[in-house]
Amino acid sequence: MQESMSNVYNAKMPEIVVQKYGGTSVGSIDRIKEIAKKIISSRETGKLIIVVVSAMGNTTNKLLDITKQISNNPSKREIDALLTTGEQQSIALLTMAIQEYGHSAISLTGFQAGINTVGDNCNSRIFEINYDKIYELLQQYKIVVVAGFQGINDLGDLTTLGRGGSDTTAVALAAKFSCPCEIYTDVNGVYTIDPNIFPSARKHEVISYDEMIEMAKLGAKVLDKRAAALAKKFDVPIYIAKSDGTEVGTFIRRRDLVEENSIVGIALRQDLISIKLSNITADEVLNVIDGFEGMGVELISVHTVLEDDEKISVFLTSTKEYTSIIEKVEDKLKKRLKGLKIKSNSNLTQLSVVGDGLKNQAEVFTKIFKTLRDNDINYKTITSTDTNITFYIKEQENYKAINSLVREFNL
Amino acid sequence: MQESMSNVYNAKMPEIVVQKYGGTSVGSIDRIKEIAKKIISSRETGKLIIVVVSAMGNTTNKLLDITKQISNNPSKREIDALLTTGEQQSIALLTMAIQEYGHSAISLTGFQAGINTVGDNCNSRIFEINYDKIYELLQQYKIVVVAGFQGINDLGDLTTLGRGGSDTTAVALAAKFSCPCEIYTDVNGVYTIDPNIFPSARKHEVISYDEMIEMAKLGAKVLDKRAAALAKKFDVPIYIAKSDGTEVGTFIRRRDLVEENSIVGIALRQDLISIKLSNITADEVLNVIDGFEGMGVELISVHTVLEDDEKISVFLTSTKEYTSIIEKVEDKLKKRLKGLKIKSNSNLTQLSVVGDGLKNQAEVFTKIFKTLRDNDINYKTITSTDTNITFYIKEQENYKAINSLVREFNL
Repeated sequence: MQESMSNVYNAKMPEIVVQKYGGTSVGSIDRIKEIAKKIISSRETGKLIIVVVSAMGNTTNKLLDITKQISNNPSKREIDALLTTGEQQSIALLTMAIQEYGHSAISLTGFQAGINTVGDNCNSRIFEINYDKIYELLQQYKIVVVAGFQGINDLGDLTTLGRGGSDTTAVALAAKFSCPCEIYTDVNGVYTIDPNIFPSARKHEVISYDEMIEMAKLGAKVLDKRAAALAKKFDVPIYIAKSDGTEVGTFIRRRDLVEENSIVGIALRQDLISIKLSNITADEVLNVIDGFEGMGVELISVHTVLEDDEKISVFLTSTKEYTSIIEKVEDKLKKRLKGLKIKSNSNLTQLSVVGDGLKNQAEVFTKIFKTLRDNDINYKTITSTDTNITFYIKEQENYKAINSLVREFNL
Repeated sequence: MQESMSNVYNAKMPEIVVQKYGGTSVGSIDRIKEIAKKIISSRETGKLIIVVVSAMGNTTNKLLDITKQISNNPSKREIDALLTTGEQQSIALLTMAIQEYGHSAISLTGFQAGINTVGDNCNSRIFEINYDKIYELLQQYKIVVVAGFQGINDLGDLTTLGRGGSDTTAVALAAKFSCPCEIYTDVNGVYTIDPNIFPSARKHEVISYDEMIEMAKLGAKVLDKRAAALAKKFDVPIYIAKSDGTEVGTFIRRRDLVEENSIVGIALRQDLISIKLSNITADEVLNVIDGFEGMGVELISVHTVLEDDEKISVFLTSTKEYTSIIEKVEDKLKKRLKGLKIKSNSNLTQLSVVGDGLKNQAEVFTKIFKTLRDNDINYKTITSTDTNITFYIKEQENYKAINSLVREFNL
């Protein structure tokens, strides 16, 4: 959203809260009914509620699969026209469920909610929210159920915000209405390591926006990185928890309100592919990168290394889902660039140790090296910044690596 | 649409045609691909094409079934928010398929196509079409794929047009652009009797709007009655055929351009229930009718008969799908109105002989009576107007009745 975006604030109105429910929370009609009851119990505390929902379960992936029967490269505008039906169905069904339990509610698609976007289809950004309609409905004490992940651009085309887009919708609405944002998901908060991967990970009671952004950037899935950055920008208090509400989750706050963790945790990005392309001239480098990006391959990192006066090597990482496209691009590039050498590695994990304590890098760096070596773990490359130390390991060594680091750093 | 609706006409533009494809035509991805090719071959004749599509197969009914898991009486606004996703999915997929075959195309939902409606949700009417967007896209030689059955009202709510609504969308667009409308469906035109029920029925090459309206009103499903009436009002030439295009279909034209058939055919409405409620006071009649309509029971006909100075009988007909609601309403009414007597009959068929030739009723009336009697067919009640003679028979006598009338009237 734009820096200039103005907030809505009316001191006479009751407290407002945005609640976001992800795909698994609305994965079945029974789950939708449970969520409806939960929303009503929040409403009954006197708060005004804006609900943001994703499409039911894996609807979005199912719809994408259908398009593959028609085209390998369907128009992004039409993909968005198709995908936006997913959230539209969930908002209608959730609204019906809330109404069935006797509360006043209304569904709004992205365009009805005034969510205006800019940028390409399938990867648009929220530019502004025309909040009049939501504001008016809240004043009528209605529970307002908004479709996440979607909006409308100035051509009147339906758009989507890319992966994690519903988080962004929720945080943007909370920013607009100067209110807190509760994100309900399938884990109970922010952990030192994704508990789906490492069940004995420790849960944070509170972390800072910066820590969350860093974790999200490096692969933590609990909150989208764009949503986390937006929350920081507009100072939106976030609370992340499981939708069943049995356990306290994690609060995300401004840095000055949080006792920072020296190490926040370990972020993982699994199922990676690394591609090393060598014997390339400087003129050819952009062609090589465009060759992948032009075919829609999402590149997680791009590094170039000067081999000698003339030749350059390019190191790319992407994810398993692009395997077949990557192979096609590699074949094309080999035909076009004589002398090109390609080496790919699949089943890699990117493992990042994240935290403000890494400003004192030398010591931690040494400790990590030593831990990996002592545990016979092979790492491929390693990078480091003020806030993270990142390396690649073979997938089969994930557990051993995490376990040794958890012991060493007391995570 | 309003009488005041102005037409778009630009002599410089190539010929425009609206093509409508029903649910079975877009029932699978393979069918969608076939339709895409057919549309492209029309475009390649030089015409500009507006396509109107329904939801895929029985998507609409499936979505309605899901709502029943949530509520017996869901909000009509939310039903429409849910149902409109059906056509939105078909337009996106069909557009992708057309693009995949190398043609320029774009999808428009009801609101994007400027289809403004008035009236209740689930049963709205097209009030006006803001044609600017479609017009602009046609000028770019794009195939414009519009979602049938849906629009938007002045509250910004998504709306649907009720059963047969996609036909209405197609005819309304053809009226707006002063162009012909081709309706592609699962039968090859308008027959003297629905060929799905009576395969040896005769196909009309051409019939008048009035004949089509009368057939549709009395149950012929090939074209929606509101669409037929709209076509008459704006003089839209209609062509109805199978989407495979192997056989010539039926043209529907102005009365003065058509040699009218003395008898157009037999229209059937099957799976009816008749309800006779007797021993009711005049004050109670409206309560009784409201009892059914208020619970959403669609009443096909309502007749009242004065039994004596004080008591009235009400004869209602509805369809099988409302059986369980009808039984509930009957139970409620019995408790509330002492002395009320109810007699219901299910599995009835309403059989109408339709045609302008019926203006000379006496002769045809006598002939029908005689035919039914000679063939031992029991009819329950009989009504007649200038253009139809209608009676109710038991479902098991359908074939015998149709067959005897076909022989007698040479249908």
